[in-house]
Amino acid sequence: MATVFGGIEGGGTHSRAVLLSADGKVLGEAVGPCTNHWLIGVDKCLETINEMVQQAKIAAGLDPNTALRCLGMSLSGGEQKDAIDNLIAVMKRRFPHLSQDYFITTDAIGAMATASDRGGIVLISGTGSNCKLVNPDGSQIGCGGWGHLMGDEGSAFWIAHLAVKTVFDAKDNLVAPPHDITHVRKAMEEYFQVSDLMGMLPHLYRNFQKSFFAGFCKKLSEGAEAGDALCQHVFAEAGRVLAKHVEAVLPAAQESLFSGERGVPILCVGSVWKSWSLLKPGFTEVMGKAASSAGLKGRFQGYSLLFLQQSSALGGASLGAQHLGSSIHMDYDANAKIFYQHSFNSSQ
Amino acid sequence: MATVFGGIEGGGTHSRAVLLSADGKVLGEAVGPCTNHWLIGVDKCLETINEMVQQAKIAAGLDPNTALRCLGMSLSGGEQKDAIDNLIAVMKRRFPHLSQDYFITTDAIGAMATASDRGGIVLISGTGSNCKLVNPDGSQIGCGGWGHLMGDEGSAFWIAHLAVKTVFDAKDNLVAPPHDITHVRKAMEEYFQVSDLMGMLPHLYRNFQKSFFAGFCKKLSEGAEAGDALCQHVFAEAGRVLAKHVEAVLPAAQESLFSGERGVPILCVGSVWKSWSLLKPGFTEVMGKAASSAGLKGRFQGYSLLFLQQSSALGGASLGAQHLGSSIHMDYDANAKIFYQHSFNSSQ
Repeated sequence: MATVFGGIEGGGTHSRAVLLSADGKVLGEAVGPCTNHWLIGVDKCLETINEMVQQAKIAAGLDPNTALRCLGMSLSGGEQKDAIDNLIAVMKRRFPHLSQDYFITTDAIGAMATASDRGGIVLISGTGSNCKLVNPDGSQIGCGGWGHLMGDEGSAFWIAHLAVKTVFDAKDNLVAPPHDITHVRKAMEEYFQVSDLMGMLPHLYRNFQKSFFAGFCKKLSEGAEAGDALCQHVFAEAGRVLAKHVEAVLPAAQESLFSGERGVPILCVGSVWKSWSLLKPGFTEVMGKAASSAGLKGRFQGYSLLFLQQSSALGGASLGAQHLGSSIHMDYDANAKIFYQHSFNSSQ
Repeated sequence: MATVFGGIEGGGTHSRAVLLSADGKVLGEAVGPCTNHWLIGVDKCLETINEMVQQAKIAAGLDPNTALRCLGMSLSGGEQKDAIDNLIAVMKRRFPHLSQDYFITTDAIGAMATASDRGGIVLISGTGSNCKLVNPDGSQIGCGGWGHLMGDEGSAFWIAHLAVKTVFDAKDNLVAPPHDITHVRKAMEEYFQVSDLMGMLPHLYRNFQKSFFAGFCKKLSEGAEAGDALCQHVFAEAGRVLAKHVEAVLPAAQESLFSGERGVPILCVGSVWKSWSLLKPGFTEVMGKAASSAGLKGRFQGYSLLFLQQSSALGGASLGAQHLGSSIHMDYDANAKIFYQHSFNSSQ
C-alpha cells in the first residue's frame, strides 16, 4: 500500500486517531476515551491507542496487520522525556504491527502543528489546561499543564473544583461566597448523586475520576447560560486565569508574532472554549491589562483567538512525518479559523 | 482479667494504640503507621489497627486472644457514618478476638475528649487539617477537614504544596513569588530527589503519597528556622488560615466557652504545631482581627492554646467506654497544658 501516516489526539476525556496519506488526505478515523497516561496508566493508554488505530485502519480499508509508516501522537501528558521513551518502548514490544516508527509530542504542540507552521500561542482548556508559546524559530516556552494537583487553572476540572470548593467554604463559614450558592449546590448534589458534602468525599478520593469530576463543568455552563451568578463567576475567573497564562508567556514571543495583521494568534483548544462568551469578561479584562503593562506596552497591540477545524491528530501525524525527514501536506488556512479578534488601538 | 479498654489515635502519618484500665491507668501501648482509610483503604487501615492492638496487649502482658471490652478509635477520616459502620462491620468479621465492642469518632473529637469534658475548639494541623468546636452541651460544629483536594488548609500537606506551587508559578512566570525561591527549590529537589519540575509529576500523580509529600513541610520548617523568607512566609500563611478556621466556628460557641478565665480554649493537635513560633505571626494577626469583628466584638476577649500531653487514643478509649454506659477516669489537667495565652483587653 501507499505510505500511510497516523496521528493521535490524546485527551483527558476523549481521544481520536486519524490516518493520512502524504498529500494530507484523511483515509480513516476512530474515536476513543481518555489516553492521558498520568491518569490511566501506561498499559491502558497504549491499549486504547492501539484499538483506535486498528479501527481506523479498518475504516480506511487497510490491512490491520500492515504497520503505518509512523504514528505521531499529540498527547495530553506527553511531556516528560523518560515517560515518552517508555511509552514508545512498551508500544513497540506489545503492538509490533501497529507502526514502523513513533513520535510523541504534547497536545499543545500537536494542536499548533495542525494550525500553523509559523508559531503562535496554544491555550488549552479541556479536562486540564496548558499554555505553550511556539516561536517562528521553533523555540518554545510553556506555562501550566502540571495537572490538577499543581495547576490546570482555567480547565474544566478547575472550574468544577472552584464551584464545589465555593460551596464547601460557604457551608464551613470559612470564605463568604461571592454569590448565592443555592443553584451550584443543587446542581452538585444532582450531578454527583449526593445528599450532603460528606457524600462528595468518595468522588474526591477513593473513586476519584478527573474526567467525571471535570464533567460537572458542563452543568455549570448550563447554569451560567440560565443566568446563575455564581456559575457565571467561575467561568469569568477561568477566563481571567487563562489570560494570565498568555500574559506569562508573551514576554518570550519573537517580534513577528506581535507584528502580524491580526495580532498575536492564540489557538484555543479544548471543550471549555465552547463557553467563550462566559470566559470573555475575565479573559478580555486581563488581556487589556497585559497590553498596558510595562513589559508589553507598545509591542502587544492585539490578538486573535482561533479554533481548530480539524483534530490535532493531524498535527501529530505531520510532526511524526517530519521526524522521519518526510512530510504531510497541511492546509493550515482550512485547519483553523478566527472566532474573536481584538486590537488595543481601536475598539473591538 | 479486669476490664480493659483500648483506644486508637489514627493519623495520616503515625498512629498509636493505648490500653487502659477503668481507673485510667495505661496498661500497654504500641505505635504504627497511617490509619486514614481514605488514604490507604479499609483493609490496610484495619490490619494496622489490629496489629497495634495485639502488640499493645502483649506489651501489657495480656493474652492476645482475649477481647478488649471496647476499642474506641479516634481516627483521621473517621467522620462519614456509612464508612464508619463499614469499618466496624469488617473489623468484627476479620478480627473476632480484638474487642467485644467498637466505637469510632474523628481525631478532633478524640483529642477533645482527652483534654476536657467541658468543650472547646480542636484545631488539627498534622498531615491534614481540621477544626471542630465542641460546645459544653456536646453540640459540634466543624470547619475544614475535607482532605487535600478540597481543603486541609494550614496542614503539613498544604504548607508543602504551597511552597512547591510557589516554585512552579515562579518558574512559569504565572505568579511572582513573594520572596526568593532559591532555597525552597533546592530543598524540594533534594527532598523529592528530582532535578527539575517535570520530575515532580510522579510524586503528584502516579506515586502520590500524601504523607511523604506532607513530610516536605519539616524541611521547610528547618529553612524557616534558618531564616529563609519564603519558608517563613508559608508558615505564616498557614497560621493565618488556621486562625480563619477558628474564626469560622467561633460564632457558634456557647457563652461559657468565651467566659472562662483563660479565654476560649483551643486544643492544638498535630506535628505542625511544633512550629508554633513560625505560625504565630499569621495566627495572631487573624485572631486579633476576629476579636474586633462585628459578630464577635465584646464576646471574644481572649484565647489560650493547649497541647495534649497524652495520646488522643485516651479520649477515644474514654468515649468508647461512655458509649457502653461505662467510664474511664481521665486526669484532664494532666492531659493538656497551655502553651500560649492572649487577652485582647491587655497586651500579651
